[in-house]
Amino acid sequence: MADTGPDLEPEDRRRVVLKDVAALAGVSVKTVSNVVNGYVHVTPATRARVEAAIRELNYRPNLSARNLRQGRSGVIALAVPELDIPYFAELARLVVAAAEERSLTVLVDQTGGDRAREQLVAEGIRAHLIDGLIFSPLALTGEDLAARTDDTPMVLLGERIHHGPADHVVVRNVEAAREATLHLARLGRRRVAAIGAQDHPAAGTARLRLAGYREALAAAGLPADDGLVAPVAAYHRADGARAMARLLDRADPPDAVFCFNDLLALGALRTLLERGVDVPGDIAVAGFDDIEDGRYATPTLTTVAPDKEQLARRAVELLAERMAGAAPAAREIHVPHRLVVRESTAGRPARPAPDPAAAGRTS
Amino acid sequence: MADTGPDLEPEDRRRVVLKDVAALAGVSVKTVSNVVNGYVHVTPATRARVEAAIRELNYRPNLSARNLRQGRSGVIALAVPELDIPYFAELARLVVAAAEERSLTVLVDQTGGDRAREQLVAEGIRAHLIDGLIFSPLALTGEDLAARTDDTPMVLLGERIHHGPADHVVVRNVEAAREATLHLARLGRRRVAAIGAQDHPAAGTARLRLAGYREALAAAGLPADDGLVAPVAAYHRADGARAMARLLDRADPPDAVFCFNDLLALGALRTLLERGVDVPGDIAVAGFDDIEDGRYATPTLTTVAPDKEQLARRAVELLAERMAGAAPAAREIHVPHRLVVRESTAGRPARPAPDPAAAGRTS
Repeated sequence: MADTGPDLEPEDRRRVVLKDVAALAGVSVKTVSNVVNGYVHVTPATRARVEAAIRELNYRPNLSARNLRQGRSGVIALAVPELDIPYFAELARLVVAAAEERSLTVLVDQTGGDRAREQLVAEGIRAHLIDGLIFSPLALTGEDLAARTDDTPMVLLGERIHHGPADHVVVRNVEAAREATLHLARLGRRRVAAIGAQDHPAAGTARLRLAGYREALAAAGLPADDGLVAPVAAYHRADGARAMARLLDRADPPDAVFCFNDLLALGALRTLLERGVDVPGDIAVAGFDDIEDGRYATPTLTTVAPDKEQLARRAVELLAERMAGAAPAAREIHVPHRLVVRESTAGRPARPAPDPAAAGRTS
Repeated sequence: MADTGPDLEPEDRRRVVLKDVAALAGVSVKTVSNVVNGYVHVTPATRARVEAAIRELNYRPNLSARNLRQGRSGVIALAVPELDIPYFAELARLVVAAAEERSLTVLVDQTGGDRAREQLVAEGIRAHLIDGLIFSPLALTGEDLAARTDDTPMVLLGERIHHGPADHVVVRNVEAAREATLHLARLGRRRVAAIGAQDHPAAGTARLRLAGYREALAAAGLPADDGLVAPVAAYHRADGARAMARLLDRADPPDAVFCFNDLLALGALRTLLERGVDVPGDIAVAGFDDIEDGRYATPTLTTVAPDKEQLARRAVELLAERMAGAAPAAREIHVPHRLVVRESTAGRPARPAPDPAAAGRTS
């Protein structure tokens, strides 16, 4: 099949043009152009064929000139606080996959949650590189984003900004946190602690999940004890481990803990197991995010599972609409979540009792 | 301080030029240009000042024109197989940090280890976007890379390609795997299994770590039993869990397991704990990578810790040299590693005995 391509002498190769690629791939020049420009509406099979022809002919589009002319790079940015927080890494993989279906390449930008870097991202100082932005800000406020002058299409992910100036895809944090806490109360636990409170102004997630926790305590008729609300500097395992140690050192330690993310919960679990505390016998533990680690932890971790695939897919979809020129008012899309109950609250399933039939014919 | 800036009327703002930014930041035009162009040799403090001035004045460099003129974007790409493998996520964070010290932005590209996508990355089809490439290929061979026609500077990470056509930063895999396996043998284990063998042609890591494992068995005078070498389709937790289950189902299960990465080991641990096997009492487990999960697992995971920070720093350093025009022969840089012994092979430290002095004065 490769032999059907244009019969080019080596010295002609530097002059390969779009038409040669189209001939080899057996598609129209317009289709090759669509692939090169990263436009949607090219099937994966066609795209693969065109890319194979591009490689075979060593075709190199004059991209800088094209960018100036058409203002498209086929690249979108995903800006997240930290790539080695598994929640964001999983989300990044899903965004890359959803974007790929539209022939878009994803540039992943790690902001560190730093205000200055987030401002740079929002202000599009690298706007020449990207056609659109999916942004999960930590430090910026809705006012910051409303004051944005860059007009690169943008979709917000996560709970930081509400009623902001841009499309926004988010999980229902208050409801989800309430469900997780109610689950602990329904196990009969009476001293339900929370790990993950933060009081700096950018702590949107923390505030919403704390509100859900408090609503659940009230609904369950449990007293709110601020001593059981553990603040943390960040949402890493080490923060959860330290916060759990402080709770255990209290005169009246909790009998259950709702952690505002799974990393905090995994850190808390480690402290509990080190101190010889039985989970869930003495203390039941629930997290939030449903990262893979929690499914393999011992005990496995009860958690709130946001529909991350839908989160990624909807974000890319809304962004693609804006990039195609649609300009509806800012939309707020909620994706579903569910509580996944595992061993850290439900306990280990009893090991199957020895099968009496196998115990020998004489019994 | 902000009041000392140029006194611009709003309608003049669209004409802000480099000179205005320099005046407000109190630096030379050349320095502003260096920041805008992402060049090295700008201190973080100066860079922050210039960026603040850029934001305040809403200066927007004419980047597309600049790129055509100077051929620099200030962006490097990091192409890795999977972002939600914690090893690559941690590496990405470290590369972002090392690049930031040189005022370089990192574009993270997830290839999925797919040959066609890796070929696109190597062939620089998006070369207009980036000044350099740090690449951890899975599917491409050294021949593929030698045939590369794109001249974007490139540094390879990881063990896939050896004696290849580009700078290469790598850990000593054979030695590291041998050390981990010898550690298990020195605990007195006699049936040391390996999880992570792969026999497709691109399985560089697997081949090298298997070689180290076999060298260690020979050095320890242990027989090589191919039945104890468990192949896996991929290096995720689920693969490790399944492989461990198969090993346990053998008539003669192992008394130790060296897993070729930590995710495999964490999956294996989960299977062992589900089956009620004591770790390390019955089976000792070691991994490779030293990801954070292993430090919080129960038991904590013994592992080979490559110096990931140096891996990232050296890769960025070599790339920056090439981007600055240096053209030495391809270099192969080895970064250090160490074996970190934790509970999965050494057992839990005995809990401190009750302090006799605290037991009461009467005793």
